[in-house]
Amino acid sequence: MHSVEFTTQTTTDGVVQRDFTVGDIPGVLWSPPSGPGRAPLVLMGHGGGTHKKWPAMTGRARLLVTGCGFHVACIDAPGHGDRPRTAHDEQEIAAMLRARAAGEPEGPVVVRYNAHIAERAVPEWRATLDALQELPEIGADGPVGYFGLNMGTAIGVPLTAADPRITAAVFGLHWPDALAETARRITVPVEFMLQWDDEHIPREAGLALFDAFASREKTLHVNAGRHKELPRFESESAARFLARHLGAAVSSPA
Amino acid sequence: MHSVEFTTQTTTDGVVQRDFTVGDIPGVLWSPPSGPGRAPLVLMGHGGGTHKKWPAMTGRARLLVTGCGFHVACIDAPGHGDRPRTAHDEQEIAAMLRARAAGEPEGPVVVRYNAHIAERAVPEWRATLDALQELPEIGADGPVGYFGLNMGTAIGVPLTAADPRITAAVFGLHWPDALAETARRITVPVEFMLQWDDEHIPREAGLALFDAFASREKTLHVNAGRHKELPRFESESAARFLARHLGAAVSSPA
Repeated sequence: MHSVEFTTQTTTDGVVQRDFTVGDIPGVLWSPPSGPGRAPLVLMGHGGGTHKKWPAMTGRARLLVTGCGFHVACIDAPGHGDRPRTAHDEQEIAAMLRARAAGEPEGPVVVRYNAHIAERAVPEWRATLDALQELPEIGADGPVGYFGLNMGTAIGVPLTAADPRITAAVFGLHWPDALAETARRITVPVEFMLQWDDEHIPREAGLALFDAFASREKTLHVNAGRHKELPRFESESAARFLARHLGAAVSSPA
Repeated sequence: MHSVEFTTQTTTDGVVQRDFTVGDIPGVLWSPPSGPGRAPLVLMGHGGGTHKKWPAMTGRARLLVTGCGFHVACIDAPGHGDRPRTAHDEQEIAAMLRARAAGEPEGPVVVRYNAHIAERAVPEWRATLDALQELPEIGADGPVGYFGLNMGTAIGVPLTAADPRITAAVFGLHWPDALAETARRITVPVEFMLQWDDEHIPREAGLALFDAFASREKTLHVNAGRHKELPRFESESAARFLARHLGAAVSSPA
C-alpha cells in the first residue's frame, strides 16, 4: 500500500492546501489550520474535462473547510489534469467533440466514457482513502463523505456503493444508464442535484437516477436553468447536508 | 377598508405574538421585539383542517422571526380555526371523510374544495395585507413573501398571481389541476416542495405544478417519504430562501 507523499504546502485565507501523490495518483488536500484534533473528510470528484484544482473544486473546498472544518481531498481522474491520456482516452474525447460539432447528443459517448473512467478511478480512490486515513488529522475511523457532480457522480456512485466508509454523498447532473443498477445498492443519505432545463440530460433521465437510490433519506434539488447554470447556493446546501451527516469537526481525538 | 385591531399580546422566548382581526378575519402576527426599523413581512398559509396557530405555523413563525428578523402573519382560512363553517364546507368535509373511509382517493374532493376556499381567501388576504401595511413596523413599500403548503399552496398560488406586492413564495404538496394555469402567470422566485412517496399526490402531478411556474428562478426540493413526512430541515431551507429574496440576513446557519 502507498502512503500520502506531500509535495507542496500553501496557506491562503485560512485554508491549508497540500499537493500530494499516492503512488502515481496526484491529489490535493485542503484542511483547516492544524489543530490538535481530527476532522471529517470529504472526497470531492471533479467533472469531465476539468481537474482537481478547477475553480469549482477550490471554491467548494474553501466552503467545506472554512464553513464545516472538514478536510477535503480531490484527485485527478484518469486522463485528466496532471495525468497522461491513453489512446482510448483520445479516441473517446474525439468522438465527443465530433458529436458536439455535428450537433448530435453527447450523452451516449459521455455515459460510455465516464463508465470506463469510473472503472479505473474507483480503485484509485479507495487506495487514496486508505492512505489519507493513515494521517493523524484524519484517522481510520472518522466520518467520510463524497461530493461530485457530472463525471464526479459517474465515479462517486460506484465508489460509494463499493466502500462502506462513505456515509453521506452529494451527486447530480448525470444520466442513469450506467449508474441506476449500482445506485440501487446505496443506502446512505444522498443529496442529488439536477437542472430542469438541462440541454444534455433529459428530466426523466435525471429523475430516474434520483429514484434509483435505496437511501431512506434522500433529497433532490432541481433548479430552473441549463446544464452549466447550477446556482452557487447549491454548494452551500451540499455543505450543510454534509455537516448534518458527518458531524462537526471534533476538537480533540476521541 | 378595515384596519388591524389587536386583541391580545404575549411574548415568548423573544417572539412577540399579537392576535388581531381585520374586519371579521381572525389572524396572528408574530414579530421580533420592537425596534426602530421596519422588517419584511411573510404571509403564511396553513393547511387544510388546521388553523393559524397549528404547531407547524408557530414553529415556522419562530424560525422566520428569530432567524431572519421578519414579521409573520397568518389568518384562519374560511371554515377553519375560529371561523364558522358553511353548509357547503360541511358537505365537502363529509365527502372527503367518505372517500377516506372508503379507501378512495381524496384528491378530487380536496382539489375542488381547496379551489373553492381559495376564491374566498384571496380577497381576505389582500385586505389583510392592506391593513398590515398600515402598521409603521411593516410599511406600505416593504418586501412581502408567502409561505404555504397543501391548502396554503391552493390559496397562495392565486394570491401571488394576483398581488404584485408578493415578491418571493414557498409552495408545495399540491395537485396541479386547479393551479397550473394560474402558476403560469407567476414570475417571482419560487421554492417548491414535494414528497417522492406521497400517497395522495402522484409524482407527476407535483412535478407538473412545479413545471408550470414561469419564474426564471425556481427550485424544487423533493424528499423521500410520505405526504406528512416533509423533513424539518425544509422549513430552515424556506427561511433561507425568503431571507435571500426579501433581504434579511439569516442569523443562525441551520
